[in-house]
Amino acid sequence: MSGSTITFTSDFGTREYYVGAVKGVLLETNPEARVIDISHDIPSHDILAGAFTLAGCYSFFPSGTVHLVVVDPGVGSTRRALVATSERYQFVAPDNGVLSLVCLREPVTRVVSVEADHYFRQPVCPTFHGRDVFAPVAGSLAKGIDPGKFGPEVDDFRRLGLPPPTELEDGGLEGFVLHIDKFGNVITSLTPDDFARRGVDLSSVRLVCGDHTVSRFAHYYAEGEGEELFFLLGSAGHLEIAALKRPASRILAVRRGAKVRALPR
Amino acid sequence: MSGSTITFTSDFGTREYYVGAVKGVLLETNPEARVIDISHDIPSHDILAGAFTLAGCYSFFPSGTVHLVVVDPGVGSTRRALVATSERYQFVAPDNGVLSLVCLREPVTRVVSVEADHYFRQPVCPTFHGRDVFAPVAGSLAKGIDPGKFGPEVDDFRRLGLPPPTELEDGGLEGFVLHIDKFGNVITSLTPDDFARRGVDLSSVRLVCGDHTVSRFAHYYAEGEGEELFFLLGSAGHLEIAALKRPASRILAVRRGAKVRALPR
Amino acid sequence: MSGSTITFTSDFGTREYYVGAVKGVLLETNPEARVIDISHDIPSHDILAGAFTLAGCYSFFPSGTVHLVVVDPGVGSTRRALVATSERYQFVAPDNGVLSLVCLREPVTRVVSVEADHYFRQPVCPTFHGRDVFAPVAGSLAKGIDPGKFGPEVDDFRRLGLPPPTELEDGGLEGFVLHIDKFGNVITSLTPDDFARRGVDLSSVRLVCGDHTVSRFAHYYAEGEGEELFFLLGSAGHLEIAALKRPASRILAVRRGAKVRALPR
Repeated sequence: MSGSTITFTSDFGTREYYVGAVKGVLLETNPEARVIDISHDIPSHDILAGAFTLAGCYSFFPSGTVHLVVVDPGVGSTRRALVATSERYQFVAPDNGVLSLVCLREPVTRVVSVEADHYFRQPVCPTFHGRDVFAPVAGSLAKGIDPGKFGPEVDDFRRLGLPPPTELEDGGLEGFVLHIDKFGNVITSLTPDDFARRGVDLSSVRLVCGDHTVSRFAHYYAEGEGEELFFLLGSAGHLEIAALKRPASRILAVRRGAKVRALPR
Repeated sequence: MSGSTITFTSDFGTREYYVGAVKGVLLETNPEARVIDISHDIPSHDILAGAFTLAGCYSFFPSGTVHLVVVDPGVGSTRRALVATSERYQFVAPDNGVLSLVCLREPVTRVVSVEADHYFRQPVCPTFHGRDVFAPVAGSLAKGIDPGKFGPEVDDFRRLGLPPPTELEDGGLEGFVLHIDKFGNVITSLTPDDFARRGVDLSSVRLVCGDHTVSRFAHYYAEGEGEELFFLLGSAGHLEIAALKRPASRILAVRRGAKVRALPR
Repeated sequence: MSGSTITFTSDFGTREYYVGAVKGVLLETNPEARVIDISHDIPSHDILAGAFTLAGCYSFFPSGTVHLVVVDPGVGSTRRALVATSERYQFVAPDNGVLSLVCLREPVTRVVSVEADHYFRQPVCPTFHGRDVFAPVAGSLAKGIDPGKFGPEVDDFRRLGLPPPTELEDGGLEGFVLHIDKFGNVITSLTPDDFARRGVDLSSVRLVCGDHTVSRFAHYYAEGEGEELFFLLGSAGHLEIAALKRPASRILAVRRGAKVRALPR
């Protein structure tokens, strides 16, 4: 697998030396690696946002790709470093739930707690495991080193549950705003499965969010007109509230976590 | 052309999974490709800004480069996907005018409407053609697949005209603010050609923009002094209003589209 | 060294054609190069920030890497372009001090003033030496061209001194805020050496900054509690004031350059 691809997701921002230092160690460890930036603008310490971003793109990369994600508010503490392996990929991340949404989609067959510190840059700086622990491990994995070399298998790693929708008394479903994207599209926790499972047709539903009721089910963004809000099925498989070339999030005046109710129309 | 370079320009932002998903599909389609980020911070839905950014850099890449640009407010609608071919490059983009400024500079010899959906990721998500249509097509082109394989040749694709300057009664020329860059430099639609064609010497001209008259013609940014505004010939071939280490755009208090008049000094 | 790595740091921002144009010229000059983005969000014209970013990451890259840094408010003027060579690396930058912090750490054995204009893109645009001068030189260096080919050796290049701490009458040390990072961590100019040299134990010290006294010496960020400020040794070797998942910079209400005093506890 030498020469394979390493993707890199972090909350390091794009004006610091942090991203450069990690890339340097990746290439020093594995000069043949191809390093691909996913995002470094995950909001600081925002594990859920990191999890959502990685889950939305990891599966499109070629088999053999190593996915490195460093959103790590617990850096230096006793939180563990993990290597998770599926049939197609390997994931390197802190044990804080940032792999939770990946694990809901990708059958992970083995998770290892990284303890073999001869793979690390020494001395390990307790404030920058991205550089001194995660990067050399990711670079080594991409060279084909077996995950078992890094430490013992574990099964008690942290998973953030994504709360399933609540059934309301009036027959509706209540979810929440999972993410607001750069365009202001409001991505909800609700998925078509939540409705199919209950025999509910999506086109018979309206969404209530903030002070607004969104009745129109569209197929693509350009279907909208004027300031009208509509909802559609987004590219990550969630129901999403949008408006034509406008940030729906501003019209709704909501933030992540806000309630979204799906009611019969 | 296997192993060639694919540049990627979009309005996807840098904190979403969108850029990562497109890169994944590019590499899955063409594992030998080298993916180069141009910008993902094109303002949302801003076709002109995307066109300006691509036009300012595409020509410096090696011959054989595939340029992928996804600024695509009409995603999912009936707007077409295009492959445009010149002697040196191939361009993959929605048919919405985002290639207009390239077409003013680069002799495009063939434009194809992408219709051969067996090249697409299936099922195609109507909200993310960047991932499911444009990326697999760009990856395939970089492998050397002939553009004709993707669909029929067309000649009615969309071009945004860049309005030429208006001649004023007093002998002046009126253009507009085409772009404001990260430094606050105010890039106008006026080019040296507009003046040469009329036998006007640039050093005999003053620019009027906002409430300011800019009389000094400089050659580089550090020529300025204090809060003085000056104009110079920018690196994309347009007249540009600047100030020493200050955003001229704030001093002028103008936005894109504002009028710029060139009058005899 | 053909096929080697070129890192690229600039204040060009991520929504312009500037970064793309430089990457294009790098690849046109040296099709085998691997171009690695460090940061393009250095604040406009901020030489110190560029110097700090490069100094924090250059040393982790493989031997043979060419580091290109373009923070260049004097572009087009008579400021020189430099190639600096150490045992492991080559640096390409304007002669404005942006290599100062690298030079404090890396034994630079030769500095050359770039004058051989047949290496440049012609005609050289006086507002974009990044594209027309620095990129072709960096690409050529990465092909193995000897630095001496670009011009004469010089030893009078600009260095920004990083002022050493001042000794206070009461036995304390006064430094300043060197950088505030994306997390709001306040990185000071003080290093453990400043204390070791004076026989002072870091754990016996409190830091005074803004209106706050910071008494707790921690080892990692997650040691903090609530709104408490603490200081620790950051990954670039400087004392750093932080708070648990909060921007310490906001609690302190300080900016770069603010005084930081280290006093006996």
